[in-house]
Amino acid sequence: MSADRSSRVRAIYEVETSFPLEDAIAVMAGEQSSGTFLAVPGETPELKQKYGARIEWIREVGTRDAPSLPGARTPKGLAQPVWRRAQTELSWPIDNLGASVPNLLATVAGNLFELQQFSALRLLDITLPDCFRAAYPGPQFGVGGTRRLSGVETGPLIGTIVKPSVGLSPEQTASLVDELAAGGIDFVKDDELQCDGPHCPFSDRVEAVMRVIRNHAERTGKKVMYAFNVTGEIEQMVRRHDLVEKQGGTCVMVSLNSVGLAGVEYLRRHCRLPIHAHRNGWGLMQRSPDIGIDYVAFQKFWRLLGVDHMHVNGLRNKFCESDESVLRSARACLTPMFDGAGRGCEVMPVFSSGQTVRQAPDTWRELGSADLIYAAGGGLMAHPGGVAAGVRAMRQAWEAAMSGTDLETHARSHGELRQALEKYSA
Amino acid sequence: MSADRSSRVRAIYEVETSFPLEDAIAVMAGEQSSGTFLAVPGETPELKQKYGARIEWIREVGTRDAPSLPGARTPKGLAQPVWRRAQTELSWPIDNLGASVPNLLATVAGNLFELQQFSALRLLDITLPDCFRAAYPGPQFGVGGTRRLSGVETGPLIGTIVKPSVGLSPEQTASLVDELAAGGIDFVKDDELQCDGPHCPFSDRVEAVMRVIRNHAERTGKKVMYAFNVTGEIEQMVRRHDLVEKQGGTCVMVSLNSVGLAGVEYLRRHCRLPIHAHRNGWGLMQRSPDIGIDYVAFQKFWRLLGVDHMHVNGLRNKFCESDESVLRSARACLTPMFDGAGRGCEVMPVFSSGQTVRQAPDTWRELGSADLIYAAGGGLMAHPGGVAAGVRAMRQAWEAAMSGTDLETHARSHGELRQALEKYSA
Repeated sequence: MSADRSSRVRAIYEVETSFPLEDAIAVMAGEQSSGTFLAVPGETPELKQKYGARIEWIREVGTRDAPSLPGARTPKGLAQPVWRRAQTELSWPIDNLGASVPNLLATVAGNLFELQQFSALRLLDITLPDCFRAAYPGPQFGVGGTRRLSGVETGPLIGTIVKPSVGLSPEQTASLVDELAAGGIDFVKDDELQCDGPHCPFSDRVEAVMRVIRNHAERTGKKVMYAFNVTGEIEQMVRRHDLVEKQGGTCVMVSLNSVGLAGVEYLRRHCRLPIHAHRNGWGLMQRSPDIGIDYVAFQKFWRLLGVDHMHVNGLRNKFCESDESVLRSARACLTPMFDGAGRGCEVMPVFSSGQTVRQAPDTWRELGSADLIYAAGGGLMAHPGGVAAGVRAMRQAWEAAMSGTDLETHARSHGELRQALEKYSA
Repeated sequence: MSADRSSRVRAIYEVETSFPLEDAIAVMAGEQSSGTFLAVPGETPELKQKYGARIEWIREVGTRDAPSLPGARTPKGLAQPVWRRAQTELSWPIDNLGASVPNLLATVAGNLFELQQFSALRLLDITLPDCFRAAYPGPQFGVGGTRRLSGVETGPLIGTIVKPSVGLSPEQTASLVDELAAGGIDFVKDDELQCDGPHCPFSDRVEAVMRVIRNHAERTGKKVMYAFNVTGEIEQMVRRHDLVEKQGGTCVMVSLNSVGLAGVEYLRRHCRLPIHAHRNGWGLMQRSPDIGIDYVAFQKFWRLLGVDHMHVNGLRNKFCESDESVLRSARACLTPMFDGAGRGCEVMPVFSSGQTVRQAPDTWRELGSADLIYAAGGGLMAHPGGVAAGVRAMRQAWEAAMSGTDLETHARSHGELRQALEKYSA
């Protein structure tokens, strides 16, 4: 890799424009670096050469008869405009911004979504020079640390989410966790709507839940990992983290989009527990094919800052996302984000939303890894044999998947799996 | 106002669905409060009544022949689905979340954009109970403090942005500021791409620029307000703020989406200078009419945290945004965000992008206020008489606008305005 390549930030976009592709993309490169709408005296050829964003390549991928988004201009005097769809890679010298994640976002995903040249513009991926790896800690626990703390050596962590999302008191929450822990669950999380409301104060919930978890751990030697939602202001998050740690807890959860890059970075520097990263609000970036940020780019920001688990939705989920998109996200989480030796900042993908025993084989086959959290609500708690049977059925499904046995065959000798297959039809 | 109304968070959305409106919106309300996909044992009618989100009203606003976004389901067995567009208001009891801005975002703009029932979903506005006003400081300087620090008693602050955005050294930046200050400018800002890159380190830039600004202030008694971009990690922002203050600076700038809610909240608590809030990346939320967050809702989060200036684009701007949208944003910034007596958290709107003397009359007439920053690049620096003439022309244009004189008439006795009208054709 050349020194030039290794010292540039790169970003891939999909765009749509009725202008000549090179012209429109040159505007985008200019706007995000040395240029502006009007030529200004200081913008010398030498300055542009050294600090301007560079177009690495452009690849046309299709055309549209009409603009995908409103508001875009068309070239003057063009009677029948055609909207060309293209992917392109831009790059920036690190001299412009330094190894700063917040400034990286302003550079690769700042004032460009509104450019009049484009009727679609999505950020697809980013590639960062090694100085970013040196500047940020990355995940503190990742897969290995999460397995160690949860005592799950192989296979996915079988998890669930406290439901109803809101409305349970701390004692009611603890009572549900008691049942889940007795059932052998590996992982439980707060809903992202539950944090520190007057009806279920954070500290009361932590104390009630951890009492239950510690009791089970003393009896069985296995400590359920509970991701307490610490989302809030900086000092609140720090205080909440410290309380979880003091009470023997092993995980904190944070809503990434609610806290933001600087907040998550601060939490990570302070944190002595795995950070379970919730992506709620991400649909805003992903839902339209014409505007936003793909998860493949999105997750890199947070991994570099140092979260340990990231939500990726699940196969045949109850939301709008396709299986193809879910798998691309999960594979991204497990793929090193830097070339060569050194930390790759891999994180544990969290599968959830409508998950039952049914998706285990496909998830395993497509991902080729069980380094994940497999979270189910109804798919576990509504098992006819109760929560414990629900957890056992999930483990049996994953044993079957990982050994290449089909679920029906495995179910012949595993009653809980058989019951689950009857309950949760394909 | 009833106690119930005053203790609930409210949010207005525009949605599109092929399901019966009430059914689809009930799913949204459930998903964002006590409900989940499957009924769970703990979700009692009493719990739903107390903690469930409530549908306040639904108003159909139109229909579509095809779904605006991909991924939505249609009701089973419906041969010819119609996609209904509606506005709706949901409300939540404060008991669920408490007066927490990050948790507010997860509640009103969390896991709902991906719901399969909807082929469009935008958050339009929010209304918060008074406990939020008590919990957050709001703007520290706002209009009055900004006028005091900049010495501009009436009319807009005439401002500009350092260009080229990147590539100038600290000394080159200071030299440009020298020319601007000599020309009588009120306000200058870093470009959002310029923060602390190796080529133009933050501390060197602050020292070089403030030396120039202090020199002019000693001579003229007027200190140019320069918004230094402090965007970064928490401790970096604090350090940078302290340096600006120590050097006699009067403003810091932050990229809201790069730093996030928790980071901006922390900066505000620490800050002793006005916070100039840059919204870059906001196009991602606004560009599509079918997904995202309207600026009217967006700006309330940041105003409550306590920023002082907020970017709103400008009339006849060079981006995609319509004048109607720009004006709605600017009016929102100047409108109190709570009912009744007490702080309204008003902030100063910042107009920019393609602004010249030409937009002053319409901006004044439509907004009915000159409590704003009017920032121009080429529209000021490219004045044939130079920067000083450019600044004078802008002031003359605003004098004309505010006195109800048309620009052409005022230009007869004001040479710089006349030159500007010749240079910047309508």
